[in-house]
Amino acid sequence: MGQLPPFLAACRRQPTTHTPVWIMRQAGRYLPEYRKVREKADFLTLTKTPELAAEVTLQPVRRFGMDAAILFSDIMTPLEGMGVAIEFCPGPVIAEPVRSAAAVDRLRPIDPEESVPYVQQAIRILRQELTVPLIGFAGAPFTLFCYLVEGSGSKTFTRAKALLMSEPATATRLLEMLADTVARCLEAQAAAGAQALMLFDSWAGLLTPGDFRSVALPAVRSILTRLRSLDVPLIYFPNQGATLLEDVATLPADVVGVDWRMPLDRARAILGPGLAVQGNLDPTALFAPPAELERRVDEVLDAAGPAPGHIFNLGHGIDRRTDPDAVARLVDRVHERSRRN
Amino acid sequence: MGQLPPFLAACRRQPTTHTPVWIMRQAGRYLPEYRKVREKADFLTLTKTPELAAEVTLQPVRRFGMDAAILFSDIMTPLEGMGVAIEFCPGPVIAEPVRSAAAVDRLRPIDPEESVPYVQQAIRILRQELTVPLIGFAGAPFTLFCYLVEGSGSKTFTRAKALLMSEPATATRLLEMLADTVARCLEAQAAAGAQALMLFDSWAGLLTPGDFRSVALPAVRSILTRLRSLDVPLIYFPNQGATLLEDVATLPADVVGVDWRMPLDRARAILGPGLAVQGNLDPTALFAPPAELERRVDEVLDAAGPAPGHIFNLGHGIDRRTDPDAVARLVDRVHERSRRN
Repeated sequence: MGQLPPFLAACRRQPTTHTPVWIMRQAGRYLPEYRKVREKADFLTLTKTPELAAEVTLQPVRRFGMDAAILFSDIMTPLEGMGVAIEFCPGPVIAEPVRSAAAVDRLRPIDPEESVPYVQQAIRILRQELTVPLIGFAGAPFTLFCYLVEGSGSKTFTRAKALLMSEPATATRLLEMLADTVARCLEAQAAAGAQALMLFDSWAGLLTPGDFRSVALPAVRSILTRLRSLDVPLIYFPNQGATLLEDVATLPADVVGVDWRMPLDRARAILGPGLAVQGNLDPTALFAPPAELERRVDEVLDAAGPAPGHIFNLGHGIDRRTDPDAVARLVDRVHERSRRN
Repeated sequence: MGQLPPFLAACRRQPTTHTPVWIMRQAGRYLPEYRKVREKADFLTLTKTPELAAEVTLQPVRRFGMDAAILFSDIMTPLEGMGVAIEFCPGPVIAEPVRSAAAVDRLRPIDPEESVPYVQQAIRILRQELTVPLIGFAGAPFTLFCYLVEGSGSKTFTRAKALLMSEPATATRLLEMLADTVARCLEAQAAAGAQALMLFDSWAGLLTPGDFRSVALPAVRSILTRLRSLDVPLIYFPNQGATLLEDVATLPADVVGVDWRMPLDRARAILGPGLAVQGNLDPTALFAPPAELERRVDEVLDAAGPAPGHIFNLGHGIDRRTDPDAVARLVDRVHERSRRN
C-alpha cells in the first residue's frame, strides 16, 4: 500500500506533507480554456458528453496543480431521470414544479446506469487521466427539493419552505425519494471510480436549526449511512450553516465544508476532532491585491490550526470574474505556507 | 410620567404586560389597502409624499394592532442628497456606482431638512395620528456601501467587497461619510418625533467576522455613540449575522434584531443581559396552516424566555404573497400567549 494522496489523507484526518487544496467550481467560466470549450457546446451538452466533461474537469488541475479534481457536472442532473423536465436559462427552470402528493407520486426512482451513464463514463475517463483524487458529488435532498418545489432559483425559496410547513408528509416523502436517488447516483459514481463523494446542501442555510434537524438532516443521514459501507470519504457542505453545525456534527461524514462566515477554529470547536473541515476563504479575497490575498490565505490556514484534517477551499464557488492568476497565487500560497517536511 | 408603551419598555428591558410585536415591512404589498394606494402613486412618490407615507405606515397598525409603527421609507432615501442618482427598477439601480477615491470625493454631506424634509414631515403627521410608538430608521453604512459600490442589488456584492479588500482607505472614507449621513438623518428623525431608531444592516452577513469587526462595526459604533445622547432606544439589525453576534454585543445599542437562523436563546446567551432582542419567526411560517403557525410563534416566544427585553418580529421582511389573515393570527397569538397580567 503506497501513501495516501494528501487530499484523501486529510479527509481521513491523517497527517499530510502539506494542506491539500481545491476550489469549488474550479472547472468553470473564469478559465479561458473552459470558455473555449463552451464556445462549441452549451452547458447541458458539456455535462452530458463524457469527453468534454472530463476535459474541463482536468483543466484547472493541469493549470494550477490542485490536490483534487471534482467531476464537472450539475446537481440537477439526476432529476431528469426521475421524470422532471429541466431547462437552463441560465439557472435551472422546472416547467412543472412538484407541489402536491400527486406530483410526488409521478416521480420514479432512477437507475444511474440508464439515466446518467455519461456521468460514470466521464469518471472512468478521468481516472485514467488524473494523478490526483477525483471527487464525485450530488446535491443534498433539501437543496434539490428547493428547486423541484420552487421551480427555479430563488432568494428565499418561500414556496418550497411553505410546502415543508403545510404538507410535512408530502415533503418528507419527496425528501426520502430524493435521498434514495442521490444515494444511487453516488454509489454509481463510486463504482465508476470516484475516490470521495460530496453532498452540496446549497440551501441548508435557509432553514432554522429546528427545521434543519427535523427535515433536511434525516435525508442527509440516510444517504451517508448507506454510503458508509463504501471505502470513500464522505463530504457534506451545509452552505451558510453556521447555526446548524451542532447537528451536522452528529452525521456519519468524514469532512464538513464550511462557508466563509464561520471561522474554521470555531467550526472545529463545534464539529469536534472526529470530522475534518473543508474551506473557507471568502471568494472575494481573490479580487484583493497579492499581498492581501496571501494574508487572507494565511488567516484561513491559521484558523484551521496545525491538527490534521483541513482541506483548503473557498467558502463558496469561485466568481466567474476571477483572474486565473489569483487562483494560481492561492494554490501556491497554500502549498508553500503549509509545507511540513 | 405615565407607564411606557410595551414596545418602548421592552426596548429598555423593562417588564411589560405582554410581548410587543411588529413586523418588518409591515406596511407593504401584502396588504390590499397598500396596493390601492400604490395604484395612484409609484414607490418613490409614496416615500416622498408625507401624507401618503403616513397613510401606509398607519395601515397595518389599524388593521392588526401592532405595538409599534415603522415609518414607510427606503434605506436609499438619504443617498440622493449626497449626490447619487438612484432609480428603482424595481430594485435600486445607481447609474454611476462609487468605485474610486475621486467618486467618494464628489459625494457631499447631507442636510436632512433640505434633502429629505418629507421624512420628517411624515413623522410629524404620524405622531399626531398614532397611539403606538413610531420607529424611525436608516440603512447601516456597510449596507448602503454595498449598493453604492455595486450599483445595484446582488447575491454576493463582489465588487463592493472587492473594494474593501483592494482599497481599504477609500472604502473606510466612504463608510465614514455614510455613517455621518445616517447619523444626521436619524437625529433629524428623532427631532421630528421618532421614538426609537433602527439601523438595518441587510448585508452584514456577507462579511467574515474579521471583516465585519474591522470594517462595518466601527461605522455602526460611531453612529450609535453619536445617537446615544438622544433619549430614544437604538436598534441594530445585522441580517444573517449569526457569527457576528459576539462583536455586535459590544455595541452601545439597546436592541439587536436577530434573523431566523439563530434561535433567540442562543442569541441572548451571546448578547448578554444588557441587550434586548427583536425577532425572529421565519417569514415562511406565515404560509403554514393556523395551528402550525401558532406552534411556531410559541416556539419563538419560548426561545426568547421569560426575561424582559423581547420584541416579537419576523426574522426578515414579510413576503408580499402573505395572506393578511395570517398576520392577524400572528399578532393575536403573540399577545394572547404572552399576556402577563
